[in-house]
Amino acid sequence: MAGSSFGTIFKITTWGESHGPALGVVIDGCPAGLPLSESDIQKYLDRRKPGKSKIVTPRKEADQVEILSGVFEGLTTGTPISLMIRNTTQRSVDYSEIASYYRPGHADYTFDSKYGFRDYRGGGRSSGRETAGRVAAGAVAAKILKQLGIEVTAYTRSLGPVEADMTKFDKSAILETSTAMPDRQADELAVAYLEERIKALDSVGGIMECAVTGLPAGIGDPVFEKLDANLAKAIMSIGAVKAVEIGDGTAVSAANGSQNNDAFTVCDGKICKKTNHAGGILGGISDGSNLLIRAHVKPTPSIFQPQETVNKAGEPISVQIKGRHDPVIVPRAVVVMEAMIAITLLDAMMINMSARMDNLQDFYKKQ
Amino acid sequence: MAGSSFGTIFKITTWGESHGPALGVVIDGCPAGLPLSESDIQKYLDRRKPGKSKIVTPRKEADQVEILSGVFEGLTTGTPISLMIRNTTQRSVDYSEIASYYRPGHADYTFDSKYGFRDYRGGGRSSGRETAGRVAAGAVAAKILKQLGIEVTAYTRSLGPVEADMTKFDKSAILETSTAMPDRQADELAVAYLEERIKALDSVGGIMECAVTGLPAGIGDPVFEKLDANLAKAIMSIGAVKAVEIGDGTAVSAANGSQNNDAFTVCDGKICKKTNHAGGILGGISDGSNLLIRAHVKPTPSIFQPQETVNKAGEPISVQIKGRHDPVIVPRAVVVMEAMIAITLLDAMMINMSARMDNLQDFYKKQ
Amino acid sequence: MAGSSFGTIFKITTWGESHGPALGVVIDGCPAGLPLSESDIQKYLDRRKPGKSKIVTPRKEADQVEILSGVFEGLTTGTPISLMIRNTTQRSVDYSEIASYYRPGHADYTFDSKYGFRDYRGGGRSSGRETAGRVAAGAVAAKILKQLGIEVTAYTRSLGPVEADMTKFDKSAILETSTAMPDRQADELAVAYLEERIKALDSVGGIMECAVTGLPAGIGDPVFEKLDANLAKAIMSIGAVKAVEIGDGTAVSAANGSQNNDAFTVCDGKICKKTNHAGGILGGISDGSNLLIRAHVKPTPSIFQPQETVNKAGEPISVQIKGRHDPVIVPRAVVVMEAMIAITLLDAMMINMSARMDNLQDFYKKQ
Amino acid sequence: MAGSSFGTIFKITTWGESHGPALGVVIDGCPAGLPLSESDIQKYLDRRKPGKSKIVTPRKEADQVEILSGVFEGLTTGTPISLMIRNTTQRSVDYSEIASYYRPGHADYTFDSKYGFRDYRGGGRSSGRETAGRVAAGAVAAKILKQLGIEVTAYTRSLGPVEADMTKFDKSAILETSTAMPDRQADELAVAYLEERIKALDSVGGIMECAVTGLPAGIGDPVFEKLDANLAKAIMSIGAVKAVEIGDGTAVSAANGSQNNDAFTVCDGKICKKTNHAGGILGGISDGSNLLIRAHVKPTPSIFQPQETVNKAGEPISVQIKGRHDPVIVPRAVVVMEAMIAITLLDAMMINMSARMDNLQDFYKKQ
Repeated sequence: MAGSSFGTIFKITTWGESHGPALGVVIDGCPAGLPLSESDIQKYLDRRKPGKSKIVTPRKEADQVEILSGVFEGLTTGTPISLMIRNTTQRSVDYSEIASYYRPGHADYTFDSKYGFRDYRGGGRSSGRETAGRVAAGAVAAKILKQLGIEVTAYTRSLGPVEADMTKFDKSAILETSTAMPDRQADELAVAYLEERIKALDSVGGIMECAVTGLPAGIGDPVFEKLDANLAKAIMSIGAVKAVEIGDGTAVSAANGSQNNDAFTVCDGKICKKTNHAGGILGGISDGSNLLIRAHVKPTPSIFQPQETVNKAGEPISVQIKGRHDPVIVPRAVVVMEAMIAITLLDAMMINMSARMDNLQDFYKKQ
Repeated sequence: MAGSSFGTIFKITTWGESHGPALGVVIDGCPAGLPLSESDIQKYLDRRKPGKSKIVTPRKEADQVEILSGVFEGLTTGTPISLMIRNTTQRSVDYSEIASYYRPGHADYTFDSKYGFRDYRGGGRSSGRETAGRVAAGAVAAKILKQLGIEVTAYTRSLGPVEADMTKFDKSAILETSTAMPDRQADELAVAYLEERIKALDSVGGIMECAVTGLPAGIGDPVFEKLDANLAKAIMSIGAVKAVEIGDGTAVSAANGSQNNDAFTVCDGKICKKTNHAGGILGGISDGSNLLIRAHVKPTPSIFQPQETVNKAGEPISVQIKGRHDPVIVPRAVVVMEAMIAITLLDAMMINMSARMDNLQDFYKKQ
Repeated sequence: MAGSSFGTIFKITTWGESHGPALGVVIDGCPAGLPLSESDIQKYLDRRKPGKSKIVTPRKEADQVEILSGVFEGLTTGTPISLMIRNTTQRSVDYSEIASYYRPGHADYTFDSKYGFRDYRGGGRSSGRETAGRVAAGAVAAKILKQLGIEVTAYTRSLGPVEADMTKFDKSAILETSTAMPDRQADELAVAYLEERIKALDSVGGIMECAVTGLPAGIGDPVFEKLDANLAKAIMSIGAVKAVEIGDGTAVSAANGSQNNDAFTVCDGKICKKTNHAGGILGGISDGSNLLIRAHVKPTPSIFQPQETVNKAGEPISVQIKGRHDPVIVPRAVVVMEAMIAITLLDAMMINMSARMDNLQDFYKKQ
Repeated sequence: MAGSSFGTIFKITTWGESHGPALGVVIDGCPAGLPLSESDIQKYLDRRKPGKSKIVTPRKEADQVEILSGVFEGLTTGTPISLMIRNTTQRSVDYSEIASYYRPGHADYTFDSKYGFRDYRGGGRSSGRETAGRVAAGAVAAKILKQLGIEVTAYTRSLGPVEADMTKFDKSAILETSTAMPDRQADELAVAYLEERIKALDSVGGIMECAVTGLPAGIGDPVFEKLDANLAKAIMSIGAVKAVEIGDGTAVSAANGSQNNDAFTVCDGKICKKTNHAGGILGGISDGSNLLIRAHVKPTPSIFQPQETVNKAGEPISVQIKGRHDPVIVPRAVVVMEAMIAITLLDAMMINMSARMDNLQDFYKKQ
């Protein structure tokens, strides 16, 4: 199907394969009048760039974004914003062998099952490179949210057994460490763990987490378009994510109601909650507390150990994957999570504007 | 927004509040020619009926379904199937008090924030009763899937600290126990635990799980419409769910690639996987293995202990909720999970039919 | 497909067949806080009721609407409004014969081609009765528009060769004449013409037209969701409509630019147009002038003359249709046109609220 | 809103302004396995190129298409096909003046009303250049349809008072004449008429028409997604179209049922119709006859005569438009009509594949 679009009013459509001429995104429904330049977007794209340290792939991806439409004299016009990133370092030679077999943990077999064949170069459309379009669009959404007082901050919560200590939360560390952890000590331990796993020709999973501040109460819908339902879809649509949690997440299943309920109270003259087990969402609608979303990311499936698999002829074989691969996906996926959450929230906020008769009357009276 | 619809080709729209005259669902896009009667649907609805044991609310909900359209001479016609359930036991008197304050853990405050006011009777639209429409539609989807060789089976995996032993999996127990656990011994322990918590005026969370057999490889889409992304949305849209896992789920974050990758091999002459850490989905597309989905459900927010909250005037008060409430949501939500998964899979399978040129050519050549 | 829904934010889903137990509509996305009662809706439904004069079918259709959800204490709650109309006079016996052949000008053959069989009673889903749901939903949309200063008025422009004289426009005549013409003299001539055609066992086509006043400039979108494109779809989706015109419509093809361009000027200190050849829409967006939409409706296909056709076995036969049929569709379709236009405009107005950054900032600053 | 996408399964998203760096389209949901090269698309784009004769603008638009994704080793992969056309001859200098006022018949005023400002260069997003993306996507849809035995042929039916004589229909003339008329004699008369109007500094409207052969019966849906409703939207979304007709179109309003009904009969052992007043669609579903769609196109609003209008300050002024403009839109819009119809039909055919249970069972049994 037309599965490359996300959102209803603020709608993005990504396109492009790992090794095609280019990849990109079309943002449709962006409000008019937002100051926007390529550097706004480049900042976000640079956060998912590889090659910054030992623990990420030494592949070079320039990822230089070009705005092709939708911006005039420095402002968005309300018409589609087309963003393109040329693929500069296509080395298809690396991928010739994997055309013939199905890599464990990858989408090779499922793509062939669905489409009859696949663009096998670098994972084609299932490559993590597809997320460059999401990040570019997320940069726009995040800029708008910031103007509305909302901040979206994702980070690495854990890598393998090494967890960030949230009591030592250091926001600057997210952008400065190679793990994107908000705890420099955990970062060091994580890097050491990763180096050990790299030597063992293995890869590592981890947890990424995102906090949202400033979101007003009342955003989201009661039934299928619950804010948490759309966030879950947004996050689970990032390759390698196998679990999504909101607030206390998996812990709620072992809790009692007396522990899990958040008491309402009054803060600075406004209704607020004493605790935030709910992660900022009740009945699918934001409650004015911070959002808290967590995602569990599987270890990179490309490992350099020998693995059993089958070839296209259906014969069992043993393979050893070559090439350059991140030993862990999380640090570069953190900005993708941030992007998807920003897009989801902005769309919900735009939809929310017509929820009440008095809002419609106020809006159209002014005109 | 129009947040009460789910699905693209097989699309359902639920409507109705806990204490309105009726509630129901419109199923649009159901294929023509399916034998369908009210009893097909009633069987599913009866599984979410309360009143079967001590651990569920003693409220009586007859939930008698009526087919209002879309079936002619026992067969679906391809036009919308409208299903209605009259609300028979409306006792708004129970709810007069809660109109004035915000119950912790409920959607009272968020509904007021969004809409300016709310139908406070029994939770209104945020009531679990809304899921009756989902279950009715799910019964239709499940019947179609069965004709395609696909079976969807959800059950209670754990209640509080009591977990079903999956090595003793007993499918008949799901429908026969009051906990919907597939393990009669765990069921007994869980009931004992629940009775103890009920006495303590508290409530309990739990895990529900769903296995799908017979789904062919190739179902789902690569990017935003990943099968697991849509399943996550479907499940997270069930009230009280706070986490969704696919396959190994949260465990992947602590795993290494060498553990997490599923080796491909050959079974009965066909490609299959030696293990199923992936839970049957790779790159957003089904891989021919069983699907495995897990959901963590929070404890019922309606507890009978005194709780702190605020009233509509924004004043802190203490409240004690009255009425009849399930001490645990999971046993009755299991069939809702099954319904949402059946609907999601069927829609993906219908969309998948036009994925390849040769499929289009075969289809239209026959005509 | 799921072809029974219309709209993006204000979304309606109709269901029901001519001779099933009931038919209805679910309105999702209606703003909260609108005063709404069954009588608001009944007024509109009564306008499409048959049996008011010689020129409409003597069939009796009570069309009593019931609000099943979405309204609490007299106000819409923002959740789905389910409206149901029981079919009271089902006489399937009339339709037993037509099950065996394909009526010319009807959807019998195309339904069988698509679905393999059909509910042949009274046209089933292709019956004009389906529009009762549209009219019920349109009543809600029209009530909201009225509160925003917008009025939608449809009427019969011509029946066969008899055209209303628009210089004698008499709004009260629309509701009071059996033709729904805004010109009582034309109404008399049209009735005479119809009576003559009825005697000849024939039927009559006509033109319906709709004017919209009060719509602000800026509603609609530039490309595929042009306001006129969505209006065209809305109107062409009414059975029997074979042409849709905006403003000067078909006349533009013979015009020159110097005639067709509307000069901008200033009226009461605001920008306006000297003429309105464009019918109130430029580049897909409303320009602040009145909208003018016209639809050409084919003659009722059910005529009592002998007609050639084929039966289900594919054999040529001659048939003579029996039963009660309107000799002309237009007078009862006028309110359907009004409904579809109201729904289309309201949806576009709700979507429009997030078109600019300053609108978002104003809206969320207030909170 | 996100108004730049069209279609449900075969979905296109166009982007780009007249004078931005580039414009293009993303085609999502194209079936995998279609042979596709840039020359397949270029052929169509060349048909809307200006500069071929006296009656079209002397502007040069190279319109060289580049495939950026979705094709691998000459075949579509099932993932989004991104097509880009660089704008090579941007001369913004021509447009500096029109920034200050609202051109009659253009979208200048309505864009400003909606978005607060506009990209005024060459009409920005409301420029006819946006249709390059539609034509590129239509080339892909048309290629697929051809493989299914369906041919879509649009042509100029009339220009001003000069009408093509359809009894002399000459298909080759469509591509060879500068008017795209299927009648060389009418073409000569039309060119003479146009030259006369050009001298008078005026512009001309016209009718374009499209015939579709080979479409099987059963395509389309009964209610809002009627095939003719979607075609009407598709065609009315082309700038300058003010009326759309199906089959006999506007003529039906003056007809009687005995004239308008098409008798069914048998042709070559299959059910067919003796006449085709319906234009191939009954009840919103194709009936196996040829489709016939007609569109009325207004005269180019850019004329070189002095015109009255207002400037941005709201002051009445007189203006004289400069630059290079087609004196008539129709000949270059014919291929846009063909494109939009091909896209609409293909999408409906893909959706149709899951209309029946037996189709689902056949499809999934094979696997």
